[in-house]
Amino acid sequence: MVEIDGARLLATLSTLRSFGAVGTGVVRPTFSDEDMAARRWLRGEMQDAGLSASIDGVGNVIGRSPNPGPALIIGSHSDTQPRGGWLDGAMGVAYAIEIARAIGDDPSTCQLAIDAVAWSDEEGTYTSCLGSASFVGELTAAELQHTNAAGETVGSAIERVGLADVAPSRLDPGRHIGYLEAHIEQGPHLEDAGLCVGVVTSIVGIRAMRVTFTGEQNHAGTTPMSRRKDAGVAMFEFGSRIRGRLAEVAGPTTVWTIGNARLEPGAESIIPGFAELVVQFRDPDEAVLAAMETLIVSTALELTGEGPVDVAASCPREPIVPTEMHPQLRNHVSAAAEARVPGEWVEMPSAAGHDPMVIAHHLPCAMLFVPSIDGVSHDFAEDSHDHDIVTGCQVLADAAVSILLDAGSSPA
Amino acid sequence: MVEIDGARLLATLSTLRSFGAVGTGVVRPTFSDEDMAARRWLRGEMQDAGLSASIDGVGNVIGRSPNPGPALIIGSHSDTQPRGGWLDGAMGVAYAIEIARAIGDDPSTCQLAIDAVAWSDEEGTYTSCLGSASFVGELTAAELQHTNAAGETVGSAIERVGLADVAPSRLDPGRHIGYLEAHIEQGPHLEDAGLCVGVVTSIVGIRAMRVTFTGEQNHAGTTPMSRRKDAGVAMFEFGSRIRGRLAEVAGPTTVWTIGNARLEPGAESIIPGFAELVVQFRDPDEAVLAAMETLIVSTALELTGEGPVDVAASCPREPIVPTEMHPQLRNHVSAAAEARVPGEWVEMPSAAGHDPMVIAHHLPCAMLFVPSIDGVSHDFAEDSHDHDIVTGCQVLADAAVSILLDAGSSPA
Repeated sequence: MVEIDGARLLATLSTLRSFGAVGTGVVRPTFSDEDMAARRWLRGEMQDAGLSASIDGVGNVIGRSPNPGPALIIGSHSDTQPRGGWLDGAMGVAYAIEIARAIGDDPSTCQLAIDAVAWSDEEGTYTSCLGSASFVGELTAAELQHTNAAGETVGSAIERVGLADVAPSRLDPGRHIGYLEAHIEQGPHLEDAGLCVGVVTSIVGIRAMRVTFTGEQNHAGTTPMSRRKDAGVAMFEFGSRIRGRLAEVAGPTTVWTIGNARLEPGAESIIPGFAELVVQFRDPDEAVLAAMETLIVSTALELTGEGPVDVAASCPREPIVPTEMHPQLRNHVSAAAEARVPGEWVEMPSAAGHDPMVIAHHLPCAMLFVPSIDGVSHDFAEDSHDHDIVTGCQVLADAAVSILLDAGSSPA
Repeated sequence: MVEIDGARLLATLSTLRSFGAVGTGVVRPTFSDEDMAARRWLRGEMQDAGLSASIDGVGNVIGRSPNPGPALIIGSHSDTQPRGGWLDGAMGVAYAIEIARAIGDDPSTCQLAIDAVAWSDEEGTYTSCLGSASFVGELTAAELQHTNAAGETVGSAIERVGLADVAPSRLDPGRHIGYLEAHIEQGPHLEDAGLCVGVVTSIVGIRAMRVTFTGEQNHAGTTPMSRRKDAGVAMFEFGSRIRGRLAEVAGPTTVWTIGNARLEPGAESIIPGFAELVVQFRDPDEAVLAAMETLIVSTALELTGEGPVDVAASCPREPIVPTEMHPQLRNHVSAAAEARVPGEWVEMPSAAGHDPMVIAHHLPCAMLFVPSIDGVSHDFAEDSHDHDIVTGCQVLADAAVSILLDAGSSPA
C-alpha cells in the first residue's frame, strides 16, 4: 500500500499559494503573469516527480509518466477566480504531483503510470474549462474568440504568453483509462456531517430561466391604481409565488436562486413598464430540472392570465446536463475511503461545475471532495484543515493504485 | 361677464409650442436657448396684453398690471421635461396672458389688476419650483448649488443666460391677494368621467420609504437552501406582501409604487447578500400617509422576525406634505365652473406636484384642471382637446373676475 508524504504535499501547496498571493487569498487569473509563473513552476515539480512535463498550446501543464499505460490522469486546474482562495483547483494539482511522487518512490507501485495535469482556465476568465475542452478535442473556434473582462481573446492571450506555436496535448485513448480529480467541496455538507471525504456521484445539471414582465410605463402620481399595468407588481408576485412551488418538486439537494432582477426604467416616480429576473436551478436529476422548468413556465402563464402584465419564461442558453461519475472508478474511490476512514465518508453530488463535466464524455471520471471550512469558496477566506487535505490525498492515491492494478490484471 | 377669445388663446399656445418643438412634443428645459427665447417672447406678449413685463433674476417672466391692487397673480411654468409635452405648464401661462387681455379689453373689468407669470424651472431641470420659491423668498443658498444633468449649477446657468445682475421679483403682500394656476390633469379621471373641468382641492403629499434587506452573499450552487440568507427572497416576499396591505389602508385616490428595486451583487450564480427597494406613496390625507408608513415599517419588522434576513425601512428624505387649496378661492372657481359647465366639473386632488405647493404657504392659491387625453403627460403624446382648453380658460377668467370684485368690495 502506497503512503503519501503529507508534509511534502502541504509544502507543494504552500509554494503554489505564493504565486499571486494576496493576504490569505490568491489572485491568479488565467494567462496572468502569476498564472504563467505558477505553470512553469508546476512543470518543474512534475519533472522532479519523474514525469516528462511541458506546457501545451492552451496553457495546460501535463506531466507524462515514462511508464507504459494503462495510465490514469490525475489533476485539476491551477488558475483562480478574480479574488480566489488558495485551494480551489490548486489542491487537486498538488495531489497529482504528490501521488506521482509517492507511487514512483514505492518499489511495489513504481511500475504504474500516473500522468499529472494542471488544466487551463477552468474558472472561465476567458472561457470555462478551456484546457480540458482542448484536451478532449471539444474546443471550438467560437470559444477561442471568447474574451476576458479586458476584452482580450483567448487567441491573443495565447500569443501574448508565447504559446502560439505550441501544439495542444490530446487525450491518448490507447494509454489513458480514466481521470481522477480531487477538489474542495465548496459547500458545508461534509463539515456539517463531521465527515472527511466525499465521493462524488455526479455533477449537477444547471438550468436558467429568464422571466420577463411587460406592462406599461406611466406616471406614479397621476395614474390610478386601477389603470396600472405595473411590471414590478407582477415581478414581486412571481418571485414570491415561485419559491414555495419549486420547494414542492425539489429533491434533497436541489438549489434554486434568483440572483438577478431589475425594473425598467427604475425611477421612484415612474411605474415600471418592464421587469425581468433570472431563476437558476441545479440538481443531479434531469427529471427534477424538467419539473422545475415546467413550473416556472406555468406560473408565468398563470400570472399573465390573472393580471394586466404579460409574463413570459424562456431559456437564455443551453442547459448544462448532469454528469454522472463512472461507477467502477467511483467504487474504487469509495472502497479506498472506507479502508482509510471507515464511516467518515459519504457519496454526494457536486453542486459546482468542474472539468470532468467536459472530460467524462471521453474518459471515465471520478472525483473526491474534502471539507471546506464553513463551506466558503471563491473567496480569500476559503480554507480546509491540513489533516483533511492529507487524508483526501491518501485516499485518492489508494484509489489510483487500486484502479491501475485492476486495469493491469484485466485491462479496462 | 368677461369673455375670453378662444382662437387667440389657441394661437398663443401654438406659438409658444414652436420654441423647442420636436414632432408633437417640446424640448424646452430650463435655461436652454429655447427656454430663454420663449421667455423673451412671453415678455413681449405680456407687454402686448398691457402689462409691465420683465424677466427676473431667476428667469421668471412677470407681467404687472398698471392697475392698483388688489391684484391676482395668474400663471404657471414655461419650462418642460427633457422630453415634454406642449401643454404642461405652457397652458397655464397662456391662460394668464389671455385672461389679462380679455379683462383689459372689457370696459366692465378693465379696472381689475391681473399680474401674469411664467415661473422658472418648475420641472426641476436644476431644482424643482426654482422660480416660485424665489418669488416667495424661500430659495436657499443650497438650492442655488443644485445642478442640471450636465453638472451646471443654478448660479452658473443664471450667469450664462445674462441674468446675474437682475433682481429677483418678490411677492407684494400689499398688492397680491391670491394665485390661480390652470394645468392639464396629467391623469385620466376627468376624461374617464366625461367631465371638462377639475377644481383642485389639494395637492397630494408624497412620502417614500427605502426598504433594505441584509442577508449573506454565497455560492448559488454549493449553499444548501436551508443555510441561505437570501436577501432577494425577502425582497420578493416584502414586495408581494405589502401590496395587499397598503390597499387596506388606502383612500379612494391613494397611489403607491415600487419603481426601484435591486439585488446585490446581481449575478445569476450568486445568492444576493443585499437588496433594496423604494416604496413611494401619495395621498391628500396625512393620516393615510402615516398609516401607510407604519404598515411598511411593521411589515419589515415582521419579515425580520420570520427569517434569516434583516429587513429595515427608513425615510430617505423629508416627506412632501399635502397642500390644501384656499377654500374661498376654490369656491370662486367651483362657482364659475358650475355657471359655465353645470354638472360637467368635479372637485379632485392633484396627484402631481405644482408651484402652489411652494406658494400656498404665503398666498391663497387655487388650481383648475382640464382633461388630458388618455391621461398622458411628460411625453411627446401629451394632448388635450381644444374645446376643453378654451372652456378651462373661460372658467378661470370668470373666477378671477369674481375673486377681484369680491376683494374690491371687501378687501381680503
